[in-house]
Amino acid sequence: MAEEVSNKQIVLKNYVKGFPKESDIILKTSITKLKVPDDSNDAVLVKNLYLSLARVLDSSHPNFKTGDLIWGFTGWEEYSLIKSTKGVFKIQHTNVPLSYYTGILGMPGMTAYAGFYELCLPKKGETVFVSAASGAVGQLVGQFAKLMGCYVVGSAGNKDKVDLLKKKFGFDDAFNYKEESDLNATLKRYFPNGIDIYFENVGGKMLDAVLLNMNLHGRIAVCGMISQYNLEEPEGVQNLFCLITKQIRMEGFLVFDYYHLYPKFLETVLPLIEEGKITYVEDIAEGLESGPSALIGLFSGRNVGKQVVVVARE
Amino acid sequence: MAEEVSNKQIVLKNYVKGFPKESDIILKTSITKLKVPDDSNDAVLVKNLYLSLARVLDSSHPNFKTGDLIWGFTGWEEYSLIKSTKGVFKIQHTNVPLSYYTGILGMPGMTAYAGFYELCLPKKGETVFVSAASGAVGQLVGQFAKLMGCYVVGSAGNKDKVDLLKKKFGFDDAFNYKEESDLNATLKRYFPNGIDIYFENVGGKMLDAVLLNMNLHGRIAVCGMISQYNLEEPEGVQNLFCLITKQIRMEGFLVFDYYHLYPKFLETVLPLIEEGKITYVEDIAEGLESGPSALIGLFSGRNVGKQVVVVARE
Repeated sequence: MAEEVSNKQIVLKNYVKGFPKESDIILKTSITKLKVPDDSNDAVLVKNLYLSLARVLDSSHPNFKTGDLIWGFTGWEEYSLIKSTKGVFKIQHTNVPLSYYTGILGMPGMTAYAGFYELCLPKKGETVFVSAASGAVGQLVGQFAKLMGCYVVGSAGNKDKVDLLKKKFGFDDAFNYKEESDLNATLKRYFPNGIDIYFENVGGKMLDAVLLNMNLHGRIAVCGMISQYNLEEPEGVQNLFCLITKQIRMEGFLVFDYYHLYPKFLETVLPLIEEGKITYVEDIAEGLESGPSALIGLFSGRNVGKQVVVVARE
Repeated sequence: MAEEVSNKQIVLKNYVKGFPKESDIILKTSITKLKVPDDSNDAVLVKNLYLSLARVLDSSHPNFKTGDLIWGFTGWEEYSLIKSTKGVFKIQHTNVPLSYYTGILGMPGMTAYAGFYELCLPKKGETVFVSAASGAVGQLVGQFAKLMGCYVVGSAGNKDKVDLLKKKFGFDDAFNYKEESDLNATLKRYFPNGIDIYFENVGGKMLDAVLLNMNLHGRIAVCGMISQYNLEEPEGVQNLFCLITKQIRMEGFLVFDYYHLYPKFLETVLPLIEEGKITYVEDIAEGLESGPSALIGLFSGRNVGKQVVVVARE
C-alpha cells in the first residue's frame, strides 16, 4: 500500500472576469497517494518545492527517477501527479540556487533568450527598449542586450525597480512609466535616435507610443501584454500604420516553440551566471498559501523581480 | 535653344487634413524646356503617358536614351524632369498593354509579389484572406495565392467587385464588407478552419476581426491601411493579444526594399500574363485633369480594379 498524505491545493472557485481577487481563489485539501498509478507508463509523482519546481517521489517514466529534480508544468499544490512529462525538464546542474529553475534557468529565462535572440535579431549598437523590465523576463532581456553591445532602456512601475534596472542590471537608463504623462515624449527623450528593438511585455498605451518611436526595419517581440490581460475591453492601439511606414516586424511568441534551444541556452547562460556576468533578482513568497496574493500582485506590479513561491523547504 | 512647351501640372493647394477634396488640388500651367539641364549627369526629361509611366524625350543618364519608356516616380504633370533615376525602371517588354507597367508589371505588381511570397511565405493548402481584394494589389495577391494552391477569400466594397473576384480572378469566395455587420462572424463563416495568411490593405475593424480568426503561426503582411489614412484619429485595434496566443508574425513593408527582385518578378509574371494564367483589371480615367477625382475615388473605393490615369495618348 502506497503512503497517503494530505495535499493542500489552490483552486479557482469560479471563472474570473476582469481582475482576479484573492476571494476568487480557495485552498482545499485532498488525499494523495505518493505513488504513480500502476497502469501508468509516462507519469511522475512529485513533491513541489516551488511553484513550477519539484522533487520526484515516484516515476513510471524511464527518464525520471525518484530523487530527480524537475521544472516545468507542475501544480499549485503540495504534491502533483504529472501524467505527461512533455512539459517538464530534469534539472542537471545544481551549483546555482535551485529557485533559478523557476526563473532565469526556466521558462522566463528561455522566454527572454528566444524572444531576444531569435525574434529581435539584435545587432551591436542597436537601441533596445524593454517594458516591465524588472520582471522575470525583462531583467534578462536587458542584460542580454547589454552583453550584445546594445543601448538599453527599461520601463518599470516604481522607483525601486528603476534603481534596480540602472544599478543592478546595467541598463543604460530606465524610467517609471507611472510618472510620465506623455509616453511618446518620454520615449523621444530616452531614444533621440529611435528604437530598433522593442521587447513588449505590457501592450496598450505603451505599445502605441513605441510604434511612433520605432526606427526603420525595427523589430517588436510580443512576449506579453500584461496591462491588457484583465480588461474586459482591451485598449485600442492606434498607431499600427507605423508598421508600414517603418517596415516593422512585430511577432508574438510562446516559449514552448523554442524549448529545443534549451541545451544551447543552458550552455550560454550557466557560465554567465557563474562568472557573475548576469544577475537575477527574485521576490520570494513563503508557502503555498501565499500563491494567490503573489499572482494578484503580478498584475499591480507589486513584485520586485521574478515572483517565486516556495511550497516546501527541504 | 531647347523647345519650350506649356506644362499642365496638378498640385496640392495646401496641406490636407482629413479626407482630401477635389478643391484641395489645383491645376496650374508652367513652361518647361524639353531638355535636361546642361550641368546634369543623371537626369531624364520625360513626357508622361500615364501617371507613373513616361516616354524619355532627353537624357543625360547613360542608361536612358530618347525614346525609351520608363515607369516609376514621375510627376502629376505633362512633362517631368527626373533628377534622380533611382526610382525609375526602363521598360523592356512591350508585348503587353503599356498601362500594365502602372499596375501588374509596376509598383502594385511588385508589391503583391514581394508581400505575398517574401512576407507571407505561403504553402500549398493554406487559407488566405485579402482585403481591398479587387484593387491594384489585391487582385494579384489572390491570383498568386490560387496559383500556389491556397484557398483564397477576398473582401471588397460592392457587388460588382465581389463578382469580379469570384468570376474573373478565381477567388474561391468573396464578400462585400459593407453588407456585414459582424466581421468576426463573417470571417468565421468563410474560414471555418481559420486564416493562415492575411494580406492587409485596409486596417481598423477588419484587422481586429482577422486577428480573432488567425491560425497558429499565421502571417500578416501589412501592405496598406486605407480605411485609416485620412482619419484624424485612427481607430484602435483591440485584439493584438492574439499575436501572442497564436504566435502571429505581422510585418509592414514598402515595395522599394524589394525592387532587386524585379527581374525575377518579370520572369515569373510575364509568361503568366501571356499564357492567360493571370489577368488584370484596370479602371481607366482619361486626362491629367481626371487625376484628382481618381485619387479621391480610391478612398471611397469608386475605382474597380487598378486606377489608371492616362495623361497623353501617343
